[in-house]
Amino acid sequence: MRQDHLISATQLSRADIEAVLDRAAEIDADPAAWGDAHGRAVLGLCFFEPSTRTKMSFDTAIKRLGGTTTDMGSVDSSSVKKGESLADTVRVVEGYADALVLRHPSEGAAKMAAEFVDVPVINAGDGAGQHPSQTLLDLYTIRENVGLDDLSIGIMGDLKYGRTVHSLAEALTNFDVRQHFISPESLRLPRGVRFDLHQSGAQVREHTELEGVLPDLDVLYVTRIQRERFPDENEYEKVAGEYQIDTKTLEAAADDLAVMHPLPRVDEIDPAVDGTDHATYFEQAHNGVPVRMALLDYLLSEEVDQ
Amino acid sequence: MRQDHLISATQLSRADIEAVLDRAAEIDADPAAWGDAHGRAVLGLCFFEPSTRTKMSFDTAIKRLGGTTTDMGSVDSSSVKKGESLADTVRVVEGYADALVLRHPSEGAAKMAAEFVDVPVINAGDGAGQHPSQTLLDLYTIRENVGLDDLSIGIMGDLKYGRTVHSLAEALTNFDVRQHFISPESLRLPRGVRFDLHQSGAQVREHTELEGVLPDLDVLYVTRIQRERFPDENEYEKVAGEYQIDTKTLEAAADDLAVMHPLPRVDEIDPAVDGTDHATYFEQAHNGVPVRMALLDYLLSEEVDQ
Amino acid sequence: MRQDHLISATQLSRADIEAVLDRAAEIDADPAAWGDAHGRAVLGLCFFEPSTRTKMSFDTAIKRLGGTTTDMGSVDSSSVKKGESLADTVRVVEGYADALVLRHPSEGAAKMAAEFVDVPVINAGDGAGQHPSQTLLDLYTIRENVGLDDLSIGIMGDLKYGRTVHSLAEALTNFDVRQHFISPESLRLPRGVRFDLHQSGAQVREHTELEGVLPDLDVLYVTRIQRERFPDENEYEKVAGEYQIDTKTLEAAADDLAVMHPLPRVDEIDPAVDGTDHATYFEQAHNGVPVRMALLDYLLSEEVDQ
Repeated sequence: MRQDHLISATQLSRADIEAVLDRAAEIDADPAAWGDAHGRAVLGLCFFEPSTRTKMSFDTAIKRLGGTTTDMGSVDSSSVKKGESLADTVRVVEGYADALVLRHPSEGAAKMAAEFVDVPVINAGDGAGQHPSQTLLDLYTIRENVGLDDLSIGIMGDLKYGRTVHSLAEALTNFDVRQHFISPESLRLPRGVRFDLHQSGAQVREHTELEGVLPDLDVLYVTRIQRERFPDENEYEKVAGEYQIDTKTLEAAADDLAVMHPLPRVDEIDPAVDGTDHATYFEQAHNGVPVRMALLDYLLSEEVDQ
Repeated sequence: MRQDHLISATQLSRADIEAVLDRAAEIDADPAAWGDAHGRAVLGLCFFEPSTRTKMSFDTAIKRLGGTTTDMGSVDSSSVKKGESLADTVRVVEGYADALVLRHPSEGAAKMAAEFVDVPVINAGDGAGQHPSQTLLDLYTIRENVGLDDLSIGIMGDLKYGRTVHSLAEALTNFDVRQHFISPESLRLPRGVRFDLHQSGAQVREHTELEGVLPDLDVLYVTRIQRERFPDENEYEKVAGEYQIDTKTLEAAADDLAVMHPLPRVDEIDPAVDGTDHATYFEQAHNGVPVRMALLDYLLSEEVDQ
Repeated sequence: MRQDHLISATQLSRADIEAVLDRAAEIDADPAAWGDAHGRAVLGLCFFEPSTRTKMSFDTAIKRLGGTTTDMGSVDSSSVKKGESLADTVRVVEGYADALVLRHPSEGAAKMAAEFVDVPVINAGDGAGQHPSQTLLDLYTIRENVGLDDLSIGIMGDLKYGRTVHSLAEALTNFDVRQHFISPESLRLPRGVRFDLHQSGAQVREHTELEGVLPDLDVLYVTRIQRERFPDENEYEKVAGEYQIDTKTLEAAADDLAVMHPLPRVDEIDPAVDGTDHATYFEQAHNGVPVRMALLDYLLSEEVDQ
């Protein structure tokens, strides 16, 4: 990649994405061969919000490359509670680590952090903004299952607050993909994302119901209605429980439809779907390791070259 | 061991137990020789309840075998707070780790988890249920100090809620051991455990006072009255403070009586006992490392063979 | 060093300090050469209070020496919550680790812990008491920037509650240093520390304003007014915001004045100072790694010799 940091999916060209995905496939084919690729590298984990899979898969990824992590810990047990600014925190941690992974509740936090430090910064989620390493593993999962060309994808659920959706939709504009967005009116894709997609010439359609479009889809990407993103509990209750998938729903789907979900799910996908060939979400979660290994390999190798 | 998972002490035969204990003794004799035994292995730590010694000793054990850990963190900083099911969490984490250690407040949680994942699951405590790796280190400590045959052991304190007691009592039925259970009436061993012991032909007696039986004991295993297991604070207050051990109590004991405790203790054993030859509880805690190294060695080696 | 533990800066002779600082300089010059110096060493992290930089830099330090850590986690997720004493906790953890790093809210905690365990204990802050590894990195930063002889240093801010100040002031008595203490009357250096300094023949002066002394200083060491140390919120409000540094303040300073701060800062130093040559606080934070590597190297090497 041409960049030193990974802040947004929008910074990634098709060639960038394919380079990471090809490297991830190499790693996936023979993980043990990469066990010393970045021995002694220290990855700084700065998570200002809860995380399980993103944090654990970055943690595992650097360790499977021979490196290790140093973890800021939760906000409650860190200097942040003493009133330290984000700019100060990341400038301190860059002294300990060879690269930083940052999750923060404020949109733009990773971009700001990257302006203050010299080591690579990876945005692991900034509020309702971006989550580009999630996008890379989503793209990898799509490519491994149904390919990234001549693809029809449905993206459903919380399109307003779901940062994984925003990153994915923008990255997909690099490929020959028809994007169908399915959500209640109140959770439509934000105007800014829609504008960017149209500017990129993306093939986009919006729907309020899954039924009409389901049979045409190669991938159905379901997202959680994130309670914590709602300023208003009533608004949450109104849409929670809609847009759920079960085996009955999927009777109308193509046999090889891949159902994806960034996880965690609450009740968007019925557990009965787990046993079907459609279920691709656990494989998707597991792809976090080879894809993040590939990403770290790129960013840390660049670092060495400087 | 014949098993892929370690869920309950009841699944362990005498041969299984002796295999792990022999391996632990080998490791204890020359720990440095095991420093690369499982290089690059990643152990997933899923602790849904607080833990110090179990978590730290598993963490240390895998690291002293050349491996490393990836830690789910506290429940508050994980996806669990977003409403994710245990089955989903463990299926995600199995993609990152070569084996899982699980502690959970619900009895049966580890058994359920093991049904969902392919990597070995170690039960590190499921509510008032089982805690079998604690049992292995308890057995190792007993064997190293007084041997496991022709043994008289007193198990005292909270026998109703103490999961370490349930696991230990059942494992001891594999050996020639007389088990004396000493507790207030309200904290007797649960009916189900008593039934299992009698079915196994165990030599069991119950007491409400230590005095009569103390002189005959080779081991006195003291447990904490666990406040957090009591539904009712009054019930707790009534028994707290009873069944305490001090140097005066021990005057009636055999010279080589080993006093054990799974720790943490509050006031069940007076600190003055620490300086006596009876005190075996810190050695017991330290044995967590070689015993868990041995256990991990067995489970991870089986994994490789598959 | 002659000691097995590092509890207080007062235990360090000039020769001790110079030995660690020289070793840190060696490490700084070629960190990669130390990557296997303490392979397999396990450092136990026992932080009973929040920490970012101390914990992360010890964590990074042992890892850059080839070792690893095992972390007690926060007090809320540990046995401490179950009522375990500090003496018990450290005696358990010493069974897992080759050395312990301890932070605790009670003054004297590390000294007490060291009496109970055989592995080296490093005091990483005990209430308003000592924080000697911070002192070593402070001294290293001063030596690298302006030298430790014929030095004028101003130490400003919260001199009453700031443990880094107490440790630093006492260590500086080993060198030819003029110490100027600048604080409001209510935050003066405690009587005990002043007494110790006078006993050591230190060259000490106290001021309530920076203005008069600033032009003479080689180093200005600014500390945070720590809200959490104040028993009374009104008292805090009265002094908060005083003793702030900005670029205008520094116009009267020598060109090569080094401004230091143990961090985190809240508003004691204006961010505009970050871009000036005076700003030495991020370098100071980063020096935590080589200095703690040097410290660990000494303590762990002694351990091996025993």
